[in-house]
This record gives sequence, C-alpha cells and structure tokens, in this order.
Amino acid sequence: MAEKYLVNGISSNEISAQDRGLHYGDGLFETIAVVNKKLLCWDEHIKRLVKGCEKLNIPTPDKKVLENEALSLLDDKEKAVVKIIITRGTGGRGYKIPENIKPARIVFISSWPDHVNKYSNTGINVRVCEYRYAKNSRLAGIKHLNRLEQIIARSEWNEEDITEGLVLDHDEHVIEGTMSNLFCISGNKLYTPDLTHSGIDGVIRSKIIDLSRELNFEIEIKNITLEFLLDMDEVFMCNSIMGVRPVKKIEDKKFDTHKKTDTIIKTLEEHEIIPL
Amino acid sequence: MAEKYLVNGISSNEISAQDRGLHYGDGLFETIAVVNKKLLCWDEHIKRLVKGCEKLNIPTPDKKVLENEALSLLDDKEKAVVKIIITRGTGGRGYKIPENIKPARIVFISSWPDHVNKYSNTGINVRVCEYRYAKNSRLAGIKHLNRLEQIIARSEWNEEDITEGLVLDHDEHVIEGTMSNLFCISGNKLYTPDLTHSGIDGVIRSKIIDLSRELNFEIEIKNITLEFLLDMDEVFMCNSIMGVRPVKKIEDKKFDTHKKTDTIIKTLEEHEIIPL
Repeated sequence: MAEKYLVNGISSNEISAQDRGLHYGDGLFETIAVVNKKLLCWDEHIKRLVKGCEKLNIPTPDKKVLENEALSLLDDKEKAVVKIIITRGTGGRGYKIPENIKPARIVFISSWPDHVNKYSNTGINVRVCEYRYAKNSRLAGIKHLNRLEQIIARSEWNEEDITEGLVLDHDEHVIEGTMSNLFCISGNKLYTPDLTHSGIDGVIRSKIIDLSRELNFEIEIKNITLEFLLDMDEVFMCNSIMGVRPVKKIEDKKFDTHKKTDTIIKTLEEHEIIPL
Repeated sequence: MAEKYLVNGISSNEISAQDRGLHYGDGLFETIAVVNKKLLCWDEHIKRLVKGCEKLNIPTPDKKVLENEALSLLDDKEKAVVKIIITRGTGGRGYKIPENIKPARIVFISSWPDHVNKYSNTGINVRVCEYRYAKNSRLAGIKHLNRLEQIIARSEWNEEDITEGLVLDHDEHVIEGTMSNLFCISGNKLYTPDLTHSGIDGVIRSKIIDLSRELNFEIEIKNITLEFLLDMDEVFMCNSIMGVRPVKKIEDKKFDTHKKTDTIIKTLEEHEIIPL
C-alpha cells in the first residue's frame, strides 16, 4: 500500500468514481525504483509512458511536472518505490473517447518491499503457469491498466519459495513472468522473447538489449519455446524493482550456474540501472 | 456522467486511489435500464455479476444490498440508467490477490442517453472494425473492467449516423459490436456468435436465446463469418440500454427488411426485458 499520494498534484488518496481508469482500465502506469533519492531509469520510464499514451491516444503528461511531483514525495529512506498512473480522466458515456480529455495523474510512493531481496543470492524458483496470455499486438509492449491476465496467472500459486510464474502464449511461446521479463543465455548468446503480440516491454529489458554489446553478448529477440529455454546455460528475470534475478529452478529443471548473469547484474548496478 | 452515486453505501463520488479496480481493472460491472422505477432484468444482471465474481475469485456481493442501493437512487424520471461496479477493493502489492479482501461496491444512476432512440425506427448503420478481439476463454463472457479493446474498436469512427462497429476475432469470426451483441436471421433460424473465446455474454442475448422457442425460431450458437452474416435475411444488435435494434446497413450491404426482428422486439417489450 502506498504511503503518500498526489492526485492531479493535490495530496489526496481518492480519485473520481467516474474516472475511466476505474471504469475501463483506460490508462497506463509505471513502477520506478528510488535509491538515495534518485529515480532509477527515469527517462526510460517516461519514454515508455509517452509511448503508451500515444498508442492509446491519451494526451502526453508533462514530464517535468511528473518528475517534480515524484521528487516531492521522496523522504530520507534509502530505497522506495514510486508508482505513476495516468488515466484518460473522467467523461464520456460508454467506450467512445470524449472530445475534451483531461487526463488524471496519480503519483504514489511506498516503502521498499521486504520480499524483494529474500532470494537474491541463490536465485529464484520459477513455476510454469497454466494460464496462457492472449495475443494482442495493439496492446502488447505498453504498460496499460488492463491487468486481469497477470492477476489470473499470479493467482495460480501461493508457495512463498516460488518468486515468479512463467507465462506462455496460445502458441506455446514463452512471453515473460507475471511481473518480470525473461532472458536466457547459451554461450555468448543472450535471448529474450519477442513481445510483438503479448507482454510488456520492460525498462530493464530494454536497457539490457541496449547494453548487450558492452556486456559481450550477441542479443537475439525471438520466439522461445519452453524446450529451448530449459536447454539454456543460464536464465534470469528482471523488472525495475527486483532488478535482475538469476533463475535457480524452473519447475524441476535446475540451473547450476549464474556466473554470466552475475556479470550482467554487476554492470547494470554500476550504471545505476538496477538497485544494489 | 452519473448524477448520483453510492460508494460502499455512502453518498460519494470518489474511490480510493489504491483500489485494484483502478490499478488493474480488477473487477466487474453491470449497466441496467430503469423504466418507471423498475430495474429491467435485475435477476439476470445479478446472475452475470455473480458469475463474473466467481470466475475472478472476488467475494460475491449481497444481492439485496445492491438492489436497495440501486432503488434508493431512483427518482421520478420515466427512464434512467443504473451502473454497478464491483472491484476487489484495495490491498495487496502487485498482482497477487491479498488475503483479506474487502470488495468495493459502486452504484451510479444517470439520465437516459438521448442518442439511444435516434435511429430506432429505421434501424442502425453498422461498420466493420479493423481491430480484432483477442481470444481469451478465461475472460470471455464476463463483464470485467478490462475494456481497452472496446475503446480501441470504438475509436475507429466518429460518424454520428454509424451507431455500432462490428468486431471480429483473429480467426475472422464475427464476435459482437463494441457495446452490443449480434443476432442474424435466415428463414426460421436465429444465429448468434459463439462467445467461448471472446465477447460478453449479454443479458438481452441470453434472454433471446431462452425465449427462442416462444419466438418461433430455431436457435444456433456458432462461429459466424462476415460472409455468412451478410447473406442473412435480417441482422439485429442488442444491449440492455438500446434494447434490440434492427441493422439497416453493414458497410455497403443493405438489409431490406426487419419484420422478424420487429416481432422479437414486440415480444421482449411485452416481457419487460427491453425498454419501450
């Protein structure tokens, strides 16, 4: 639960019950790690948010206003999480986009989640979800507010020692975790699933792709089957809050090493891309 | 825009900015026609709402509480629209469903939309949307709050004389309109699309299927192509507010008669299923 909030710039924990974000999930969000009062990958988060607004035809929020609001919520804690929600605002009857749009802007800060560092040293256990993501190229990539698919997939397990669930699409291609992107390594090749039809184009994922040459990997974005994945040397998952986590186990398949993943983690930490 | 509101039983137009309905579209809704202080098809709306709650594992709302709240908002106007939203409420971090769920309940009333009766006599003009609905059998049928697909499809046209857009799925099967279900007639056969993988199981649609024998039709629920549809004698679309509307035109194809649709409308009006 968030601890401090700004709704359209005003300290408030309520939004209009007429907001299209509530009625239709008509909006976007970003979740940003804060370390020592620095918003990690701020430019990249804003870039994705703007891309989402353009795709959904929502007027683009003012970057500087968002940044000032986020910074105004920071306190002296070493780490925190900032979440931004942009909705199309209130108005209109039914699905038709109203003519005079005034997007709503919500900025939250909350404490760093304790569970995040729990399994960092040895890697995380991952299950394969039964749920399959729908294919939807118009909505793929952006971080929109229609997230029932993730809730359904995440509801499949309660075991505390399982950190993440892997979700495939209807063609049995591995897409990502319920809350993270996926990479796998074989030799000097780094693979990550093609997200043309499903999934979220994660900020950390983008950064790793951009840095692949510096990381001494040849990157390939492709359709990945479970069989292909389980045959890899190393697998890791990533998001803005948990950073990069080596995968120790997918179902019964163990991955014995995460040496190359560790070097990636080190480089990303040096670049202040992921929290230490 | 709604004119009177109850949020968890209290007269308010605001909800918590932490509500999972806003963050994830984690909830359901119903839109109900009110005629002379009667909530049309109330039992059927509640039945679908309960089914949706069961599918999403949200505790079922108290039917009597919802009914009392809806009735308390009615005034002396001949017609009105009641909308109910049920969300999983606040709580939890991320997609995982929190242990102590307290769903949120929002009941709105708004005036009857003027545009609804505009094209009722002669039938409506319909376009074929370019957007294709994703296939998702876990979410199909229920009226959940993830409605970006409908917003995208509805944003394709602005012509005032086009009432509805027909949306197909990725297999080129006709599913429904952006806000209504679809039926078509050939001889004494009444067809409506199979909604196993996409679409909303509309209350009026269900009623028509149930009454098909009384209406002297043989009903068939099946995959319908655009070619099949355009070859029909009559086509109509339906939802709780607009009732049943004969289709005059789909793109350039004109339907010359709506005699059989008119008898269906008459019967549904007599049963107080659709507004007069």
